[in-house]
Amino acid sequence: MKAAGIIVEYNPFHNGHFYHLQETKKHSNAEVIVAVMSGYFLQRGEPALVDKWTRTKMALQNGADIVVELPYAFATQKAEIFAGGAVSILDSLFVSELVFGSEEGKIDPFLNTVTLLDDQRAEYDSLVKEYIHKGHSYPKSTSLAFQELKGTNHCADLSQPNNILGYHYVKAIHDQNSSIKPETVLRTKAGYHDAEFSDASIASATSIRKKLLFEKEPIGSVESYLPERSFIHLKHFIKQYQFLHGWNRLFPYLKYRLLTAGRQELSAVYEAEEGLENRLVECVRTAASFEEFMEHVKTKRYTWTRLQRLCVHVLTNARKSDMSPALETGKASYIKLLGMSKSGQEYLGTIKKRSRLPIISNQNQYEDPFIQLDRKAADCYALGFPEHFRKEWLQKEYTTSPIRYDEINRKFQ
Amino acid sequence: MKAAGIIVEYNPFHNGHFYHLQETKKHSNAEVIVAVMSGYFLQRGEPALVDKWTRTKMALQNGADIVVELPYAFATQKAEIFAGGAVSILDSLFVSELVFGSEEGKIDPFLNTVTLLDDQRAEYDSLVKEYIHKGHSYPKSTSLAFQELKGTNHCADLSQPNNILGYHYVKAIHDQNSSIKPETVLRTKAGYHDAEFSDASIASATSIRKKLLFEKEPIGSVESYLPERSFIHLKHFIKQYQFLHGWNRLFPYLKYRLLTAGRQELSAVYEAEEGLENRLVECVRTAASFEEFMEHVKTKRYTWTRLQRLCVHVLTNARKSDMSPALETGKASYIKLLGMSKSGQEYLGTIKKRSRLPIISNQNQYEDPFIQLDRKAADCYALGFPEHFRKEWLQKEYTTSPIRYDEINRKFQ
Repeated sequence: MKAAGIIVEYNPFHNGHFYHLQETKKHSNAEVIVAVMSGYFLQRGEPALVDKWTRTKMALQNGADIVVELPYAFATQKAEIFAGGAVSILDSLFVSELVFGSEEGKIDPFLNTVTLLDDQRAEYDSLVKEYIHKGHSYPKSTSLAFQELKGTNHCADLSQPNNILGYHYVKAIHDQNSSIKPETVLRTKAGYHDAEFSDASIASATSIRKKLLFEKEPIGSVESYLPERSFIHLKHFIKQYQFLHGWNRLFPYLKYRLLTAGRQELSAVYEAEEGLENRLVECVRTAASFEEFMEHVKTKRYTWTRLQRLCVHVLTNARKSDMSPALETGKASYIKLLGMSKSGQEYLGTIKKRSRLPIISNQNQYEDPFIQLDRKAADCYALGFPEHFRKEWLQKEYTTSPIRYDEINRKFQ
Repeated sequence: MKAAGIIVEYNPFHNGHFYHLQETKKHSNAEVIVAVMSGYFLQRGEPALVDKWTRTKMALQNGADIVVELPYAFATQKAEIFAGGAVSILDSLFVSELVFGSEEGKIDPFLNTVTLLDDQRAEYDSLVKEYIHKGHSYPKSTSLAFQELKGTNHCADLSQPNNILGYHYVKAIHDQNSSIKPETVLRTKAGYHDAEFSDASIASATSIRKKLLFEKEPIGSVESYLPERSFIHLKHFIKQYQFLHGWNRLFPYLKYRLLTAGRQELSAVYEAEEGLENRLVECVRTAASFEEFMEHVKTKRYTWTRLQRLCVHVLTNARKSDMSPALETGKASYIKLLGMSKSGQEYLGTIKKRSRLPIISNQNQYEDPFIQLDRKAADCYALGFPEHFRKEWLQKEYTTSPIRYDEINRKFQ
């Protein structure tokens, strides 16, 4: 059986994601689509709007065959580490292609970019440092350094967010000597960070979250941007739990931790560098909301995303010593199965014995330093639920089996 | 001016406390009563029902002239350390007498007890160990050891909770070579731990809290047990903040901390011994309330109070390394002024320059390792307030000046 891989967050699953899944099938001719999905906390340093089990259902009903979790240690990370973890999982699951969405839309510029940067790494690094020294943010500096280096080569435009991720996917495949073939599809209409709706049926996840979380619009206002079988899950979640998850649900815990941790414990947190953690402590006392807090914390030097990720690590108490193995190997050490279709199940049967990494259905049966981080992340996420659901959610991580979906009869089993 | 000292918690201030204040004035003939009061967390390991500023007002309106705070490092401690800290503060404020309530009611049995235990310390310690080894709790073991040792001497009955505290006050005076003269008044009617009301006007603070917090009785149900000027403050607090403080308000934070701290950080917490902290972690996930949690945690080996105190230290993240100075010297290093009457102010003017310890009116002006613990305790207490009051309360510790009371015209200034 031929499998293609995708790397996703589905926060929440919208029409653009559906298009990406369809294009992946078309491009790859694969019988099985494997999605590596972030769990409870996302790359930009935010809790997911709805839980990972709900998002898994959205994915399975819309064409994914296998959904596995990107461990916390890779999920809430800059693009390089995020990509490395995800690619190592897809590699271990023997997908033949990785298909990602990009502003570029063609694969050659990515391959050119990787080759270029591989050949001229030292020069690139020193240029990046130079730009950071001039006061630019890290992403801006990498982009400027690259512009300078590439000259007239046709390379991917690394100022575009999906191109950056795509570049790191291709680079990870290259660095890990993986046989996966990278492919890309053009992202249409809605830019990654677009906060406004640009079309009647396609909108970015960011703009959908903004409408629901900050503008407090009713759920119906986003209906046209989600496939029906995604919208129903979102609606069901809101009806059942009477909330949508977001930073403000966890802000009391972050505040508590920042005010009681003390300098020593805070400086041990992953990504707590250059006294940034002390800045968080100073700003948190008087902030009435997470947004207000971030506005106080923000400086030109650090991106919003960088600061939010630090906040997640403070919240989950992910320490440098916990995270360093992720940086050393750059690869995942297990694969946590969240859900599968019948085809997915069949495919897993054919590769399970060959897989380099253990495939875990019940995480109680497996111990790993990164699993502990996943649990802490799950516990923090659970504590953000309304009080009478917390007990239930604090146990969900230990009691939920992978979701099974019968794609022929279109029902969960 | 002659001053007498008392050591109190006022959680909340009731008729028994009023009686104690009156008796102290009568016994000592003092012009000024100095009360050393616990702050936000109490000896039994609980947050105070109402904040320390409200309790200071209750005290001043009912006859106390100076209210100073017992620092966190002494307040949430076993009797020995609690007493040592409080006595060191009273000694530094030059009170001539310390008057405490006891079941015994006469001072000689306490003096006899201190002398006896001073002479036969080694024998006593080995007896206590023996009883602990036999499976008795620490307080029970000390009581049994003492019974065995005293023979026919007339000593204080150390199975009674107020006698235990009283014994430690007298012992601290003795150990610190203080010139304070200890005195005691008989506690009437309501036992320290009595959970039921035993009289029409006298009830223990425990029974009052039980009625309000667990039986959810209306505030009017305890009116007859509180002096009017205490009841009004309690009523006002409830009206203003729509809650009374208690462990359940802080349980989400305790839960969060226990689930994310990890073994290393938890074992660094003060009083985390013999793996007790791991027991807390195991029990916390499924507990729906603090009461339920404690029921799961409780074993014969540890008293409820011992476990609650550990929970407070986990919550405030008070580490062994933070607390050890309190154990080494056994004495306070500053005096935090919470409130004073006109007489109290006059008295402070006469002794301020002689005081061995700095008397602090605004804690921003003073740095001390124990002040940091007081701040963490204040922050945790503040986070238990309903959300829209948290910002205000997170700043109160830094912005509130000592309360001034004009006892002649009976009004606050």
